[in-house]
Parts: sequence; structure tokens; C-alpha cells
Amino acid sequence: MDISIDSIKDLRQRTGAGVLDCKKALEEADGDIEGAMELLRKRGLAIAAKKADREANDGLVEAYIHSGARLGVLLELNCETDFVARTEDFGELAHDLAMQVAATNPKYLTPEDIPPQVLEGERQRQREQLGEDKSEEIIERILEGKLQKYYQEVCLLEQPFIKDEGLAVRDLITDKIAKLGENIRVRRFARFELGGE
Amino acid sequence: MDISIDSIKDLRQRTGAGVLDCKKALEEADGDIEGAMELLRKRGLAIAAKKADREANDGLVEAYIHSGARLGVLLELNCETDFVARTEDFGELAHDLAMQVAATNPKYLTPEDIPPQVLEGERQRQREQLGEDKSEEIIERILEGKLQKYYQEVCLLEQPFIKDEGLAVRDLITDKIAKLGENIRVRRFARFELGGE
Repeated sequence: MDISIDSIKDLRQRTGAGVLDCKKALEEADGDIEGAMELLRKRGLAIAAKKADREANDGLVEAYIHSGARLGVLLELNCETDFVARTEDFGELAHDLAMQVAATNPKYLTPEDIPPQVLEGERQRQREQLGEDKSEEIIERILEGKLQKYYQEVCLLEQPFIKDEGLAVRDLITDKIAKLGENIRVRRFARFELGGE
Repeated sequence: MDISIDSIKDLRQRTGAGVLDCKKALEEADGDIEGAMELLRKRGLAIAAKKADREANDGLVEAYIHSGARLGVLLELNCETDFVARTEDFGELAHDLAMQVAATNPKYLTPEDIPPQVLEGERQRQREQLGEDKSEEIIERILEGKLQKYYQEVCLLEQPFIKDEGLAVRDLITDKIAKLGENIRVRRFARFELGGE
């Protein structure tokens, strides 16, 4: 089928993928933008999986100070080479992630980083709100859903990206891995707010 | 005695104290700059002691990114009011402290923040280097001196200020407390370096 230049442009703008990759994904998805994005993301994941065990010790330390200087964020974003670290794409990702941390105040990077006692406390708290009139199986299923929501609140990588709520931060990074061809990971972040914890 | 304008200027530049305070301190110290600085510092300490239990919840969050973006520091400096937080003096102090952390990589704010097991490990390490041929009393005295040196390495407030090695960071802050008339404290800091801990 014929793919319009406009839809390639659109897909390219949304994903940052190359022109040929966008054209191919659109052809495979019969011109459907959402479908093509999904294909590109899956491919990104495949590339990302291959890269994920590669060492990433280069990168950038990015700071973001909110206007008025009552809130600040420091974030270390790693990639494999100085070359990629100095690209505009990588710098943009570092900046977006620091803004994300400033705006949404995540406590952890991934669900695996939540201390077991904190997670257990959260399960307990959610469970108490559910009441007693449901079967164990249903309770477990509801709890699982609530925990997923909790992860999306407190874990940076699970959060919806502030500039595009349809995209998880994890996917944003995966897209950049696919585009830049290097393993990329957030190593750590700190967020200081006056009067905050 | 007559105090020269130049020595007042000099003292003022070094301490940031007001003209009249500088003149008075120089008179009391018979024109000796070092003596006058000591007097001003003692007075600062007295003022600081009076301020130290006042709440300090305003202030600034300051970031410093070293050139090349491979090293960054985030620091929260508290004072009592937004008015002082917005002074040039306070901003300068926040900036100097962030630079200090970048340059010297302190692990703690004060000796009290060193975990007991870390401190015990350091004592042990120092003690082993001393050998067996000294009396317990002498060993204790040497150890005490070595621990003081250790504090000056790993604790921000005990470190010599990078822009003036004769001044401890603690004294730098005390001077600003005396000058600005509000309690000031470093609340926390983070330092990220690529490939570092």
C-alpha cells in the first residue's frame, strides 16, 4: 500500500525512528499509526533486550532547578560511549527525565527497588480498604491491579511520561535505545524540595 | 588607635562583616587583621548559637554541574525567610558549598552523621597502623588527632573551604549567619559522578 509522507513524518516525530524504519512499520501496520508505533516499540524492546546486558558507564549528570530554586533534581543517565552521551537526543532524554522527577516525585527507579517492608505495608493498606466480602482469588486480583497503579505512582520507570501520558517512562527510554543503538539506563536520581522529606 | 581605611576594607572583604563592625574589631585587636577576624568569628559564633535553635525551612536548592556533565551536585541550603534566601550573599554561599562538594567529595555533613560501624572501622584501621610499642594513653591521643583529620576529609562542615583553606566550611557558614542575621544550615546534598559510587 501507499504510505503518505505526512504519516511518515507524524510517526517519525512521535517515535524518533528513522524514515525508512517508519515507512516499513507503517506498511506492516497497513498505514495505522498506532499499530506502527507498537511495531517500532516491539523492535525497540528487542534491540533493548540485546543491549541490556552491555555495560553503560558513560553518560551525563543532569540537573534541573525549578523556577524559584525551591525544588531541584539531579539525575545520572548512563549510555555506553561519550559519543552518544553528547548527542542532542541523549541530552534531551536526560533533561526530560529530570523534569519528570521534578514534576512527579517518584520514590524509586523500578518496583524491584521498593523495600520489601514498604511493599508489604502498601499491600496491607490496600487490603484493609477492600473489606471482607470477597473471595481470596478476587481480592488477590484486585490487589495486583492496585499494586500496578502504586508502581506507576512511585517508580520512575513505570510512570506515564509527563509530555505524553500514553507512554511509560520505560518505553521512552526503550525508544531511545532503539534509536541511538546503545544501552541506556537511569542509574540514580535525587530530588530536594524545601520543607520536603 | 587609628585604623586605616585599607585594613577595614581588607577585613571587610575577608569576612563580609559591616564597616562599623570591622572598625570596632580592628580597634579591639589593636589593628591586627587576624585578631580582628578571630573576634568577628567569635561574635558570629555567639550570634549563630542564639540562632541555631530557630527553625530554618526556607532557602535554596542549588545545583552545580561540572564542565562535561560527568559530575553534578545538588544541595539544599536552609535559612529562615525567603527574603534572606534571595540575597546575593546567600546565593553565593549555596554556590560555594555546591562547588566544595563537587571538588572534595564529602561523604557526610557532620561527624555525628558517620554511622557508628564506619567510625569504628576507621578507628580500627588507624590503630593497626600505629603498632604496639606505645602506651594506651599516647595511642588514644594519636587516634584522636587522626580522627579529627578524618572528619576534615569526609565531613563537609569540617573541611577546609576550597577558596580559603584557613577557614573551615563550618566557619564560613557561621560568618554568613552573623552577617545575614538568620540561622543557616546545609540540610542535605547529593553528588553524582559517572562511574562513581
